[in-house]
Amino acid sequence: MGLWVLAVLLVASRTSGAAALVSPALRAFSSLHSAPRSTASSPGAREFSVHYLQQKVDHFGFSTDKTFKQRYLIADKYWKKDGGSVLFYTGNEGDIIWFCNNTGFMWDVAEELKAMLVFAEHRYYGKSLPYGSKSFRDSKHLNFLTSEQALADFAELITNLRQTIPGVKNQPIIAVGGSYGGMLAAWFRMKYPHMVVGALAASAPIWQFQDMVPCGVFLSIVTRDYKKSGPNCSESIRMSWKAIDRLGSTSIGLKWLSETLNLCSPLNSSQDVEHLKDWISETWINLAMVNYPYESNFLQPLPAWPIKVVCQNLDNPNVNDTQLLKNIYKALNVYYNHSGQARCLNISETTTSSLGSQGWSYQACTEMVMPFCSNGIDDMFEPHSWNLKEFSDDCFKQWHVRPRPAWIPTLYGGKNISSHKNIIFSNGELDPWVGGGVTKDISDSLIAVLIPDGAHHLDLRANNAFDPMSVLVARSLEVKHMKQWIQEFYGSLRKKY
Amino acid sequence: MGLWVLAVLLVASRTSGAAALVSPALRAFSSLHSAPRSTASSPGAREFSVHYLQQKVDHFGFSTDKTFKQRYLIADKYWKKDGGSVLFYTGNEGDIIWFCNNTGFMWDVAEELKAMLVFAEHRYYGKSLPYGSKSFRDSKHLNFLTSEQALADFAELITNLRQTIPGVKNQPIIAVGGSYGGMLAAWFRMKYPHMVVGALAASAPIWQFQDMVPCGVFLSIVTRDYKKSGPNCSESIRMSWKAIDRLGSTSIGLKWLSETLNLCSPLNSSQDVEHLKDWISETWINLAMVNYPYESNFLQPLPAWPIKVVCQNLDNPNVNDTQLLKNIYKALNVYYNHSGQARCLNISETTTSSLGSQGWSYQACTEMVMPFCSNGIDDMFEPHSWNLKEFSDDCFKQWHVRPRPAWIPTLYGGKNISSHKNIIFSNGELDPWVGGGVTKDISDSLIAVLIPDGAHHLDLRANNAFDPMSVLVARSLEVKHMKQWIQEFYGSLRKKY
Repeated sequence: MGLWVLAVLLVASRTSGAAALVSPALRAFSSLHSAPRSTASSPGAREFSVHYLQQKVDHFGFSTDKTFKQRYLIADKYWKKDGGSVLFYTGNEGDIIWFCNNTGFMWDVAEELKAMLVFAEHRYYGKSLPYGSKSFRDSKHLNFLTSEQALADFAELITNLRQTIPGVKNQPIIAVGGSYGGMLAAWFRMKYPHMVVGALAASAPIWQFQDMVPCGVFLSIVTRDYKKSGPNCSESIRMSWKAIDRLGSTSIGLKWLSETLNLCSPLNSSQDVEHLKDWISETWINLAMVNYPYESNFLQPLPAWPIKVVCQNLDNPNVNDTQLLKNIYKALNVYYNHSGQARCLNISETTTSSLGSQGWSYQACTEMVMPFCSNGIDDMFEPHSWNLKEFSDDCFKQWHVRPRPAWIPTLYGGKNISSHKNIIFSNGELDPWVGGGVTKDISDSLIAVLIPDGAHHLDLRANNAFDPMSVLVARSLEVKHMKQWIQEFYGSLRKKY
Repeated sequence: MGLWVLAVLLVASRTSGAAALVSPALRAFSSLHSAPRSTASSPGAREFSVHYLQQKVDHFGFSTDKTFKQRYLIADKYWKKDGGSVLFYTGNEGDIIWFCNNTGFMWDVAEELKAMLVFAEHRYYGKSLPYGSKSFRDSKHLNFLTSEQALADFAELITNLRQTIPGVKNQPIIAVGGSYGGMLAAWFRMKYPHMVVGALAASAPIWQFQDMVPCGVFLSIVTRDYKKSGPNCSESIRMSWKAIDRLGSTSIGLKWLSETLNLCSPLNSSQDVEHLKDWISETWINLAMVNYPYESNFLQPLPAWPIKVVCQNLDNPNVNDTQLLKNIYKALNVYYNHSGQARCLNISETTTSSLGSQGWSYQACTEMVMPFCSNGIDDMFEPHSWNLKEFSDDCFKQWHVRPRPAWIPTLYGGKNISSHKNIIFSNGELDPWVGGGVTKDISDSLIAVLIPDGAHHLDLRANNAFDPMSVLVARSLEVKHMKQWIQEFYGSLRKKY
């Protein structure tokens, strides 16, 4: 799963205190970086064994032979040595145990595919830290946090599994990942097609890069979700920003806002007001990603179709500022207080400095440069243009690196990927990331699967009685292709011998 | 072209003075590293313009933003903006001007393909030095000399050409290379299929790596060439080693050998005798690579079918040691004194410390780990087994790096490359490198082209009146495929618009 962490736009500037430069709506993305919790809140612990592989810190140079331990998990309950397969989860920006426990799809299909499940942790996340606690110290220590190094880790791990686990050597391996992990699954198949017979890239916005999709597409999809979920909903949110500004322009208004929104720390300045708007924007964006058809507990405990519930509170835009903000408060509580246990709302809780968010902030400042913008017309957010120069300066301030926005398209092919084979790109149409995803078949074996009722990689989640038909169809299509790849593998193996 | 420089086995140990550890036959490979000469000795200067592109020293990390100038050449006499193509030479381990002037095939087909010719210099060779004169100072400065970085340079260069030369943007580009450059051409198509529509990989021993072909195959093919070129020829050479040992075991014998072989510096020790045998082995190997059907001047001025001429002197193995060595001297003169101008023979002339040989020595000690061995039975050389430990220690002594022999197969797929498309692997059956090459079709679009009468990438050389039919057929097949790729490109372009 993943990618609650993908977005990150401007963690950089936020952390460096340059918040004022940045559109709240855009900074909002950083909130997606909430650290995964590998606690009892997981939707059901699974049985797996934990392993470590000694990996080169730098696969692409020889001046250091330093190594680190990459963590990976194995679940082989349904694996068959004869005629089996391996589903290889290409770990993304977070603790691998959390992803393991939240990728129910792999567990659900293991028996049918006689599959061993392998979950590989991405370097610089979870316990796979190249320099231990110093891993994030500076750009020198962070230098080996790239998608290329991560893919090389996966390749070395697969080579090792093939050598050390009897039976795996001659089995087909399929890469599976969601969000950034889905991008990695697709890229792994593209760059190491000898390692995996195919890839399932769920909600993988591989085109959310420079010059490939309009920078506004993400926030316009978020907006569409709210528009569809209740009358006047997106309009109410669009109007709320100016209402907050007006209320926040006086000290009485600040006090009123702090009390009405039940904030843990009172607002004191115009900067606090900007933070408040960021935090609210982030909340709406998060909700668009986790807008699942059943009660879930991913980032927060949530009701089924949470945006619908939010929008029930935002159906009337023709109210005065105070009433609008009271409605906004009720709507926020859908996300922050579904359980009814929250004492107050903490607007700094998204600015976590957890490992995951640090790592992604660096990645967003180097390779994963995703331009975002809003105009307030096609979307319900405050207008903000994409400013690479400003973004780059912020990155330099925070990490002492500068982004190379053209590198990912140069490396992975941008929109010109038709020569590859056996990749499924699945996308939920409710997911804001669908805007950067592959949503049309590119060839017979580069397949787009659309899930009209799906939010962010709903298909990778465990089967649920409330799953809409569209995700069931998607999963069955995915399994069909995976079986076909497996059959083709065994077919060509038989030809050889 | 290229790869007169490929082999390098143990430049490392040679340079570090550990010569005694190493089989002469094996060390011989290092001689292939003779520095290319971009002088009048080129078979005909061509018209091109010289350019430089600012490249990142490290494409795969962000802690340094240091850049260097990569040299590249452009020849566009026959290029058509409309309906044209680009042939992109993936430069290998030497001065790009030398390769440019010695890859006549590209010049010969330019008009037919309406092609622009681009020759990209490989980093750390020629004038493309990431750290100028300090580039070879230590393993830190050498850290960015890898095939991955070189491919990334090519990708950035192509991106730049597409952006800056009107017309190139929408044209098909084909990678062309020979020897190590052929490996790069194939790997470039595998890793960056969005950059080039296909690759011509001439005499590219992409399988001359760990566990893919027997380590003895290279020297057994050298031997086969001598066997086929005259009765008793390989047998005479096989017997010569012990004869040299016997003669070299006394001071009178050393003197006699020095005089009879007309050496520039007299032999003084048993170590000198080992060097002599290395140098002779290297000569036989070089000859196997340049065993062309017409007079040529690549490494040395040579007659047509030089091994046949060599073997005319070695047709009788039933002679005593002194007579055998007199014959060997005559045979050596075919290589070293075809012009009749050589004053004496210099057995240290292969141990050049030119840029090219330094670079390849490092590459052989890191990624390009090619196991070689001989047994004296299937080949005419003294027996020597492949010893990775010893090789690694020698590398560490010389460069302070250790080889990773499994990395290239992990990275580029080893023998499992069937998912790729549009690569021609051409090989001359006289070429010792054919043993590590792709010599059977892998699929409809991974084509093997065999040239029974060809030495090392004869097909990339300019048309010659004495070309055997087999190379003419090969070239025409190559052009046929290239035209097909170009047509397919324009066909799919038309579909798009």
